[in-house]
Amino acid sequence: MTNRTINFYAGPAGLPLPALERAKEELLDFAGTGMSVMEISHRSKEYDAVHEEALALTKELMGIPANYKVMLLQGGAHLAFGMIPLNLLRKGRKADYITTGNWAEKAYKEAKLVAGDNVREAGSTKAVQFARLPKASELDINPEASFVHFTSNNTVEGTQWKDFPKTDKPYICDMSSDIMWRPFDVNQFGLIYAGAQKNLGPSGVTLVIMRDDFIEMCDAQDLPSYLRFKLHADKNSLYNTPPTFGIYLLRNVLAYNKSIGGLKAIEQNNLKKAELLYGCVDKHAGFFKPFVTEVADRSTMNVDFFLPTEELTAAFVSEAKKAGMVGLKGYRDVGGIRASTYNAVSVKDVETLVAFMETFVQKNG
Amino acid sequence: MTNRTINFYAGPAGLPLPALERAKEELLDFAGTGMSVMEISHRSKEYDAVHEEALALTKELMGIPANYKVMLLQGGAHLAFGMIPLNLLRKGRKADYITTGNWAEKAYKEAKLVAGDNVREAGSTKAVQFARLPKASELDINPEASFVHFTSNNTVEGTQWKDFPKTDKPYICDMSSDIMWRPFDVNQFGLIYAGAQKNLGPSGVTLVIMRDDFIEMCDAQDLPSYLRFKLHADKNSLYNTPPTFGIYLLRNVLAYNKSIGGLKAIEQNNLKKAELLYGCVDKHAGFFKPFVTEVADRSTMNVDFFLPTEELTAAFVSEAKKAGMVGLKGYRDVGGIRASTYNAVSVKDVETLVAFMETFVQKNG
Repeated sequence: MTNRTINFYAGPAGLPLPALERAKEELLDFAGTGMSVMEISHRSKEYDAVHEEALALTKELMGIPANYKVMLLQGGAHLAFGMIPLNLLRKGRKADYITTGNWAEKAYKEAKLVAGDNVREAGSTKAVQFARLPKASELDINPEASFVHFTSNNTVEGTQWKDFPKTDKPYICDMSSDIMWRPFDVNQFGLIYAGAQKNLGPSGVTLVIMRDDFIEMCDAQDLPSYLRFKLHADKNSLYNTPPTFGIYLLRNVLAYNKSIGGLKAIEQNNLKKAELLYGCVDKHAGFFKPFVTEVADRSTMNVDFFLPTEELTAAFVSEAKKAGMVGLKGYRDVGGIRASTYNAVSVKDVETLVAFMETFVQKNG
Repeated sequence: MTNRTINFYAGPAGLPLPALERAKEELLDFAGTGMSVMEISHRSKEYDAVHEEALALTKELMGIPANYKVMLLQGGAHLAFGMIPLNLLRKGRKADYITTGNWAEKAYKEAKLVAGDNVREAGSTKAVQFARLPKASELDINPEASFVHFTSNNTVEGTQWKDFPKTDKPYICDMSSDIMWRPFDVNQFGLIYAGAQKNLGPSGVTLVIMRDDFIEMCDAQDLPSYLRFKLHADKNSLYNTPPTFGIYLLRNVLAYNKSIGGLKAIEQNNLKKAELLYGCVDKHAGFFKPFVTEVADRSTMNVDFFLPTEELTAAFVSEAKKAGMVGLKGYRDVGGIRASTYNAVSVKDVETLVAFMETFVQKNG
């Protein structure tokens, strides 16, 4: 039996134990090949089966319509920040970006770098330290925009768009920190991208889901090949050597997700975890102070809250660690405590944290 | 005991068994954390130790001088093909490319796409199907070139620059398929890059070694951040989330390389393997016909040869597979047989292949 640490890291983050155990079991001998999956050609039939299964499971779990292509690339959200304007903001096309946090701002700045005045900020909550999402009335969408970019979950600040922003534009969305946390309708989206290292697998794989009309917008023959979404789509993410082991692990995670009932079951777990954690924070409102000011905007993935003093915050982190829980220190820009409760964090893990919080309040409150 | 297949894949390729066993052993519990190395933050002290060790072992094994930075990035050689001209061929700078095979041509074409007429072909052996390297007299180096790009080992064709081209220019070199096959003097190089998946580790990690004056040439504030070499160098390859598991595995491979005596010992193995394999090909010159026409240009990493007929070639591949050896089918552009004998392929593995070849000749010759 493995004694597992309870992992509240913001990413890279915990993965489902069965997905890791499967990898361990066959690390030296994959599918009867007598080799590790990372030692075999990306053109071999054994790897190809993994690659196809990873793509198919993504489509199946998310209910992705036939007019979308799924890609598995490299470079994380950071490289995608640049590839989006390089591919899509050509021929004077315009885009609106909604900035709701640290990562949303990065996406906006990278787009601005490439496409200058063709990129506009369509709404921002920076003036309130990103402690809530913009209201519908605060969004100012350019009628000429080809798409609206937003960040579905703000990892640093702990806000999440439960209802996506309401506009009549196609969306491009960075879902790095909440992809597959629940079922949703993909049809509104021209492009969805996500670094794998929170809900999907190890770092080094980027999931890209792109609608055919958006792929056709990428007529970018003058870009270096690796930067062209269309080329990757046409070559089924095998234009160059993919990160085979990372994709294999992602396949293991998705196969596990399917085995436990898919995104509906995962959503139930996530809602339960959020209810437990925010329930405890609210119950002790004099001791724990949530960072996010609007209850409706609270993230199910990253729960940020403050303790009365820096000393108590440090004691919380260090005592939690002694109790077998890591990753609770808030991001430097926000401070306080951040508990990241991605899909692989169980209800039981959160119950353990909540019990610890109760004891901590009794002792220090 | 694991029954290992003998792996002659061209990449992703075999890795040293002890490096994989170490990964298997600690896959669920890395460094006493109670978590997999792929589940921990890239800002944690446990991952940081791996990251630093991977960089330090690269410097130590290759004898990299202090005026170089080592980076571990994503996107493989393909992304580097684009990043090189995007970063370095600015302000009208010029470069010469020597094209000696499939991959060298790709590097040249990508540079040409970005930098147009500022990129020249300084020599090519395409007219002879890349079956040898250019002679010194066939190189025409532009005195105005800021660097000369070449590919140290041509994976598809099986040629290798044992003596690097002789020019007075700094070199940029794609060493994807022979990095660390032997010790060499790094000082001639402005930039060395290599996808990990042949001699270093799993796919999804790119090793970049860059001299300080080349880093300073990368004044590229208008490029998307991920594409800037200088940013990655300044941030110690932690600007964004690195491919942590891939870097961990690379660390395991390098630690193993050090334990067996470093690059001098590895070179001895590689020379012995090449001697055995080419010895057998030459001994049966009426049956096996090497693709490479100049003995001096023969690669120690990829050994390409033909059999008298397509039928015999197919029989060779299929009988070898039955005997526990995979990856011997030649690349589609060349055909025939290709045995890739990267660092992780042992002398014993090659002896097994040579014994098989002897039997095959006796039966079919």
